[in-house]
Parts: sequence; structure tokens; C-alpha cells
Amino acid sequence: MAHDGHPFDQAIALVAQGPDRWRGHTRAAYWNMVGPFGGITAATVLQAVLRHPQCLGVPVALTVNYAAALVAGPFTVSARAARTNRSTQHWVVEVTQEAPGADGRADTGVVLTATVLTALRRDTWGIQDTPMPAVPMPQDVVSPPPWRAPIEWIKRYEVLQLQGPLPGEWDGAVSTLGPDEASLSRLWMRDAPPRPLDYASLAALADVFFPRVYLRRARRVPAGTVSMTVYFHADDALLREVGDGYVLGQARAHAFHAGFHDQSAQLWSACGKLLATSLQMVYYKE
Amino acid sequence: MAHDGHPFDQAIALVAQGPDRWRGHTRAAYWNMVGPFGGITAATVLQAVLRHPQCLGVPVALTVNYAAALVAGPFTVSARAARTNRSTQHWVVEVTQEAPGADGRADTGVVLTATVLTALRRDTWGIQDTPMPAVPMPQDVVSPPPWRAPIEWIKRYEVLQLQGPLPGEWDGAVSTLGPDEASLSRLWMRDAPPRPLDYASLAALADVFFPRVYLRRARRVPAGTVSMTVYFHADDALLREVGDGYVLGQARAHAFHAGFHDQSAQLWSACGKLLATSLQMVYYKE
Repeated sequence: MAHDGHPFDQAIALVAQGPDRWRGHTRAAYWNMVGPFGGITAATVLQAVLRHPQCLGVPVALTVNYAAALVAGPFTVSARAARTNRSTQHWVVEVTQEAPGADGRADTGVVLTATVLTALRRDTWGIQDTPMPAVPMPQDVVSPPPWRAPIEWIKRYEVLQLQGPLPGEWDGAVSTLGPDEASLSRLWMRDAPPRPLDYASLAALADVFFPRVYLRRARRVPAGTVSMTVYFHADDALLREVGDGYVLGQARAHAFHAGFHDQSAQLWSACGKLLATSLQMVYYKE
Repeated sequence: MAHDGHPFDQAIALVAQGPDRWRGHTRAAYWNMVGPFGGITAATVLQAVLRHPQCLGVPVALTVNYAAALVAGPFTVSARAARTNRSTQHWVVEVTQEAPGADGRADTGVVLTATVLTALRRDTWGIQDTPMPAVPMPQDVVSPPPWRAPIEWIKRYEVLQLQGPLPGEWDGAVSTLGPDEASLSRLWMRDAPPRPLDYASLAALADVFFPRVYLRRARRVPAGTVSMTVYFHADDALLREVGDGYVLGQARAHAFHAGFHDQSAQLWSACGKLLATSLQMVYYKE
């Protein structure tokens, strides 16, 4: 399915450069403070695997490690099938960028490492053990407070905040909510303009939540995702069911310690079906 | 810290084979049904990074992808620092094994892919948002029911089951507990014989839980972890505090669908400090 005119598709577009190699280009539309939005880079990594002629099945697990901020410009994605079984396939992915070295010659640096598991899904017994929390449906959310941060990629998402918004005042007040809620955010989200959900855009949605340390402390310290894992529970049929509708996202942290905090996230369709679960580790300073 | 006589240390022992390459050997003491216990392989991967002369800091994130069951015998671990920053380092790891090919010549196959993030931890603000659940302390757990499965690696752990034990009868009865509890297990665990906790043994503990689908359905279908991510919240001081004491583990699933279910896990010290959080994806049949 191609939606070539959509900024998301422009941002994850790749040109084949030979076996296992692709060329992409960062886009201003998804720029974060330093480098691109991590979600769009994760989506690009997944796209390289899904567009690979040897790709078997659909994505089941994705881990991306953000080793360095990408600079604006072209980058190379290498995606190699390390092992192909009858119904599963293991991919190793790296993103590299040439950076001018001290001596004026271009130096190739790894900016991201990743692994992807794809599989032929089979019909089996199944059940969902994480009901969608009781929240107002998107059409009932009154006057959604828009995110006003001066960051470009945020404009690429329609976000309806339900719980745990960005602090209105950065007064350094540590949350007095109980541990279950102190770092919890819930929000409806979808691409802006709306775009039918696919695996790549679902991977990006898993990274839309701002760093939990902002919410927990009301203090804007330097922070950024260093590693993110996304597990896909959605299959093609469920993605079609969602279409370009809103996805409910929930995120919280378990612990903040010595420069790193985790973030657990769950994403549901508006019908309450679990689409993805995710865990990420976030660096923070001070 | 070396404990060369302990079966855990024997199982994760590696011999340097040149830059970025190590040789290990599977051990009968940690054998699972097909291949070694996934936790011991995860620990071995981490060990290769921690023993690497270039290793910077302590482990923060580990992702292992189980691409194929290891066969009994030697294996090779390659561990390469893909990127070294001032305070973080990104590792790419593969485990390979030679398998006799159809033509009689040895064929090298990838059996595992992994990424590891290590970092120099810094003193920062911190807080824990996931209190240890209220459970009896190890000394108060009366007549712990031992795991009786005829699997070797299980004998390498002292396990005190608190909640969600292996089904007593495999009658295929789907759990009637609510969604929060239907796939939930809690247990105290430590190495047998006791061994001071370190990063490698903590990584292995994150994989001690049996597949959630066994608990949820009381049906022993073929099942195995395909990908596991472990985030370390413990640092050296906290590991020393735990020593060879019990660790509380909690695991549950969010969704079972089309051949895969996830498993979220948290591990605490007996003093209630969060040591690690983990997410894994498990293949299951039928």
C-alpha cells in the first residue's frame, strides 16, 4: 500500500542501493530537537525489512538502539536476513551516515542498530489480557489541548490528551500522584493528516509519548530514547479494521535511576483490541 | 568477580578466539527440552560484552533474538562495539554454530542475534514507580512446591512459587481469573546453589518464568521465547546489596494472538528495589 503524498511515506521512503542496502534521507517534517523523531527512524528501519525481496511474513518484534543523533541529510540502511526458518525470519539492521572526519575525509559512522523478527502468522487459540482502559472516545474529548512545543514532528500527529499531559508549568514539582499514576499518560493519536495504519506507522506511534521524566518531575532535562522494543499483536486484518482511525496509547515508567528510566507502553484500536506493546529505555541528565 | 566452580559460571564461560570473537560450549546442567535454557544463552551473550577489553560501563539494555535452538556442543560468540560515545556504547552480537551440511561440509549458521547497550551510569535524581507487590518473604513461604518438570535447568534455580504456578492438571481449562491475574505468576528465585547476583545472572533470571500460555490454558503446547529484552535498573551497589539472596519475579502476558504472546516481567530485590524490567515475545503452537 503506497501513500506517496503523505509526509510519513516521504520520510520513510528508501531507494534500493544493491543487495541488503537502502538509501534514505531525513525530512524536516519529522525533525525533533536534535535529529529526527525516533519513531520515524524506527519506522524506516522496519520499512527496509518489509521492502526487502526476501522478507518472510509480517513484523512480530522490533528493537531499535539509537546510537547517535542522525544529522540532516542522506543515510544508509543495511538490512540482512541473519536466519530464515520455515515460519520465522531474523533480521539485523544498521543505519550509517557519513560524517566529515577531522582530516576532511568522510567517515562512516553507525547511528542505529536494530533487530527485527518477522513471521508467517498462523491461526491459533488467542485471548487478550489487557483490556483498553475506560476513557472517553475521541469524538467525546472536548477541546483537546494542542501540544504547543515548537517541535516539527509533533505537528505530524493528531493527539487528544486524556491523562498525564506535558506539564503546564516547568516548576520542578515532583508528582504527588501514586506510583501507578505519577508517570502515566493516556492519549488518542493518529497521523496528521490521517493515514491508514500499517506496521511502520504503528512502530512510530509507540514512540510518540514524551519522556516520562518530564511528567514525573515537571523539569525539562535533556532526555532521549536509547533503545526501544515494539511487539506487534496486530495483523493485517486488524490494521485494516483500524484504518485511519485513532489509536489509544498508554505509557508509564517503572523506575528512574542513575541516568536512565524505562517506559512501558500499550496501544489499542478504538474497538479495544491490543495492537502493540512496547518497552523503551530513556537517557536523562541530572 | 569469578565463581569458577559454580555451574552458572561454567555455562557462561568463554575463551577468547581473537578480536571480537569468543568460543563457548553448551552445558548439560542448563539443558532445556530442545537446546539450552534461553536465560543462560542471554547471560552468555552479555558475558561476551562484559569481558570485552573495550567494554564501557555497565549493562543498561539487552535484546536477544533466539533464531534457532543451539545443538549440544561448541558455539562462537561475536561481539562488536558498533558505536562508542562518551558515556554509552552499542554492541552487536551474534552466536553461530557449525552444523554438518547436506554435502558433509560444515555450515555456519546464526542461532542468535543480540544488541547490548552499556553505559557509564551517573548520579541523577531518581525514583521507583513500581513498588514490590505485597508477598510473603522467602523465609515465610511454607513448604514450597518444587517444580517437578523433568528439565535439567530448572534444578539450577531455587524457586518459591507464590502465585500462578504450573498447572497441576493439564486439562486445557482456560483460566477464569480476571485479565490482570489469568496469566500472572509471582515467585522468589535464586541460583542453586546460591551465587552472588551479577548482571549475567540477573539477565538469566528474567527468563525463568515458564511460558504464560501454559498457565493461561493449562495446555502444554509447543512454545518458546523468540525475542527477549531486559533493562537493568540495578547498578553494582544494588547487586552487592542483593548478594546471593532471593529475587522476586513477576510475569504476565498482555495478549495471545496468532502464534505469539508477549510477557512482561519485573524483578525486585527482597528489600523491594526494582532490579530489572523485561518484555519477551513467545511463539506458541495451536
